[in-house]
Amino acid sequence: MTDSWVNETLYEAWGQRFKVKRELARVQSEFQDIMIFESYSHGRVMLLDGVVQITEADEFVYQEMLTHVPLLAHGDAKRVLIIGAGDGGVLKRVLQHRNVERAVMVEIDGEVIRLCKEHMPGISGDAWNDPRAEVIVGDGIDYVRRAEAGSFDVVIVDSTDPIGVGEVLFTDEFYANAARLLSDRGVIVNQCGVPAMQAEELAETSLRRGRVFADIWAYVAAVPTYVGGYMTLGWSAKDASMREASAETIKARAEAAGILGLTRYWTPKIHVAAFELPPYIAEHLPKA
Amino acid sequence: MTDSWVNETLYEAWGQRFKVKRELARVQSEFQDIMIFESYSHGRVMLLDGVVQITEADEFVYQEMLTHVPLLAHGDAKRVLIIGAGDGGVLKRVLQHRNVERAVMVEIDGEVIRLCKEHMPGISGDAWNDPRAEVIVGDGIDYVRRAEAGSFDVVIVDSTDPIGVGEVLFTDEFYANAARLLSDRGVIVNQCGVPAMQAEELAETSLRRGRVFADIWAYVAAVPTYVGGYMTLGWSAKDASMREASAETIKARAEAAGILGLTRYWTPKIHVAAFELPPYIAEHLPKA
Repeated sequence: MTDSWVNETLYEAWGQRFKVKRELARVQSEFQDIMIFESYSHGRVMLLDGVVQITEADEFVYQEMLTHVPLLAHGDAKRVLIIGAGDGGVLKRVLQHRNVERAVMVEIDGEVIRLCKEHMPGISGDAWNDPRAEVIVGDGIDYVRRAEAGSFDVVIVDSTDPIGVGEVLFTDEFYANAARLLSDRGVIVNQCGVPAMQAEELAETSLRRGRVFADIWAYVAAVPTYVGGYMTLGWSAKDASMREASAETIKARAEAAGILGLTRYWTPKIHVAAFELPPYIAEHLPKA
Repeated sequence: MTDSWVNETLYEAWGQRFKVKRELARVQSEFQDIMIFESYSHGRVMLLDGVVQITEADEFVYQEMLTHVPLLAHGDAKRVLIIGAGDGGVLKRVLQHRNVERAVMVEIDGEVIRLCKEHMPGISGDAWNDPRAEVIVGDGIDYVRRAEAGSFDVVIVDSTDPIGVGEVLFTDEFYANAARLLSDRGVIVNQCGVPAMQAEELAETSLRRGRVFADIWAYVAAVPTYVGGYMTLGWSAKDASMREASAETIKARAEAAGILGLTRYWTPKIHVAAFELPPYIAEHLPKA
């Protein structure tokens, strides 16, 4: 019997491949092709349209950085909106913050939620049952269009790349609505790809974000399975002071929020350092 | 005609693959299998025994962090020993420091030097002809055994993983000799693998390094083609103060050395931040 391998198809001429122990699910949903398999190297792995979204082995890197950085940079985030993130890992981390009062998660593809609950339950834990959580299977674009002005402190966009179903989460209209629904010190973060391979993704989204937010930047995370060096997470805030908090301030907030000691990648110093971009990445951001 | 792909064989059940535009060299040297090809995605790529060593597209990340961090942490490094690094990229960066008086490079495999000069000349530039450079095709183990005590300020080990020809560069004997040939404030750095996949490499080399050096640590670099998140670079010094220099101090030294503005990954703040390890990496280092 020959070994079975899955080749990631994100890039045309380079990518990663996994030896498959066992396929667990393969579903064509209304929106995308969903595949979950057991790997030999990374625990369980989920692909959407052939692109790796999450592995059990290293999901903590991306989820921690996508969640703890905006919440602790804000310092008093009580109302958090999550777009996408159907695996539940961001929701779990948002709810670890004891000062969060409400977390709304809007995932367009109910099949992603269902399959992750069934095959990767450890990623979300029991976040789904937290009384502060509201999980909506629906269109994030539509949700932000209708949301009340100033009704959230932080928006976290955990989307696929700006192709396919995720494309609408990178438009001018989306960012304008996000700015409207955020409170005065609000911040929105979104994944902006791996600049070594997808620099235009960071450059384009930064220009768009800059049309509606005063403070545009990005921060980095070395996510093992988003191959290609640093991934950038887009940072769009109404107030530039938020990314200037010192490691001491961030540490004090993390202690108050109850997340110190829970993390495997994020630390207060890594939080601060993540905003310092290598020149090869910084050159794709608008000049200050 | 079907496309031609090269699969990296470093790990048994996971890895990266490149679509090959054109094979440039394939040589079985006395020590290893050397392959250089033109990729569609990363410029030219060199593999040794099936493992990616360098690509033109992102070599600057690894080379800058392997070179500038120890030299600028030291602050007065005049004599630098390089083991391996047959592509010449570390030699080039060492010689960018105008205070360096002597750079000795010992590469065991002359075929690597020859093929890199021929097919990837941009990586080394004209470093080979610098009057401060001495390039030796020979055994690094033997060189450190015979080197005079206190004759170098910094040792940079740019080796393959501790398998095959590189294995001897991770032994007790090697580290003891390195400690002997280093000056009082000397430091040696060596690549310690990608902890998300090779945690034991960091743990084992740290224990061994700890037998002869007072200050054992590691620092991180997000190298695109060493897939798997952060790569760790091992840090072994006689003096713990060296990794405590502030970003301001490092910047002043970089300016004096003439390397400010030459880098695409390294910056003074990234230098300092690189020593702050995510908990998932720090847990593999000996407890302080």
